[in-house]
Amino acid sequence: MGLIGRYTFQLQPQDGDFTEQILASSLGDYILQAAGKNADDNGFGIRELHPDHHTWVLIRMATEMTEMPKIYQQITIETWIETIGRASTTRNFILRNEQNVPIGFATTNWAMIDLNTRKPIDLGAIPSLSHFISGNSIPIAPPAKLPSVEGNLISTRQTQYSDIDFNRHVNSMKYLQWVLNEYSVDWHAEHTIKRFDVNFLHEAFYGEEVSLYRKEDAGKDQFQINRQNKEVLCKVQLQWTKN
Amino acid sequence: MGLIGRYTFQLQPQDGDFTEQILASSLGDYILQAAGKNADDNGFGIRELHPDHHTWVLIRMATEMTEMPKIYQQITIETWIETIGRASTTRNFILRNEQNVPIGFATTNWAMIDLNTRKPIDLGAIPSLSHFISGNSIPIAPPAKLPSVEGNLISTRQTQYSDIDFNRHVNSMKYLQWVLNEYSVDWHAEHTIKRFDVNFLHEAFYGEEVSLYRKEDAGKDQFQINRQNKEVLCKVQLQWTKN
Repeated sequence: MGLIGRYTFQLQPQDGDFTEQILASSLGDYILQAAGKNADDNGFGIRELHPDHHTWVLIRMATEMTEMPKIYQQITIETWIETIGRASTTRNFILRNEQNVPIGFATTNWAMIDLNTRKPIDLGAIPSLSHFISGNSIPIAPPAKLPSVEGNLISTRQTQYSDIDFNRHVNSMKYLQWVLNEYSVDWHAEHTIKRFDVNFLHEAFYGEEVSLYRKEDAGKDQFQINRQNKEVLCKVQLQWTKN
Repeated sequence: MGLIGRYTFQLQPQDGDFTEQILASSLGDYILQAAGKNADDNGFGIRELHPDHHTWVLIRMATEMTEMPKIYQQITIETWIETIGRASTTRNFILRNEQNVPIGFATTNWAMIDLNTRKPIDLGAIPSLSHFISGNSIPIAPPAKLPSVEGNLISTRQTQYSDIDFNRHVNSMKYLQWVLNEYSVDWHAEHTIKRFDVNFLHEAFYGEEVSLYRKEDAGKDQFQINRQNKEVLCKVQLQWTKN
């Protein structure tokens, strides 16, 4: 049982867009899956925590890619814990292509909450976690703390059956998919995502009406998703490169 | 190279709904992926056909399940060609769980078209295909030829970036996902899909406005998806069992 978990995934046709490149939201699914597998392998995964009524909650995520993999290709994701603070832990990722060459990095911040009170747990009170601190950093900036978006309301939608995951809330990567859908296929044909940052602030549940706001900001497109009563659910920042 | 292809898939968390069971649309993705792999393995997959400007088009599909697999489980899909007519071919599937026990069957009808003219190719003019006819049937009814739905308009939507696949049209299984989203999570918590039939009539493209009609019919819910000018794109029939 090493500090670094290494997981290989075969990308499925349904992960790809019309260019056969993986959707950024599907790539995010695999990154989060690697995180879950590594937590399971080390004995602090969701399945181990649920009997104690604890669970991990993703707070922030950043992913930076130099190459977007395509459907049918294999990717390998290496992941480890860099640091553990009282309120949150930082987990990093290297993504490698079939030739084992790094094609991107990701970094995430997680908190642990009590499922009944939804309040955070002090991670310092779980000393066994400290065995898994590697201290290893990655060469990208930490997840941005994104500003509020005072931009234009560009769409609303009602959350649907297929948005809801086993946590009975909207799946984290659905927010990113909604944002990607605000760009046309012509845009996607000419641009590739270089980096995305996501901040998760509140959970959305089934049947809620949510609103998406957008502001373009010098190469960093900012989005914010609010629930009906204006509470902020999620903020997303996208950086693109022209092909 | 046998007549029967056998493909094993590990179900991903993103394939599952809030009950951790696979969405019927994600199950359909794996069935179609097995079809594609077997066609590739036998030398008549899309990648072999594209240089001749030919491609396979799915016309009808039926899937009948006695057990819905869950995320993280493996499923094995066996597939083969039952018959080849002039206009279409029938491809069958057995789905097996991790204990190798059959949990369902699927059957599909495919035509081959010319990519330039979009007109059908006479399959009798491709004698090499006949080597792959097994004649083996499965114990479920063939895909239903579904009636027109004179039901209620229940929703409209514009096709989005994430709906479009590498064929540059709306992915077949998105229609099924849209239909599944017309049922509440409460419905999904209490019912499981026993059988779905889908008829594919025309392709939808990016940015089209599509309309969904519904009619309840004695245990067989009927849906029809039309494009703006009323042309029928797809018909879906769902049969549920109460849990």
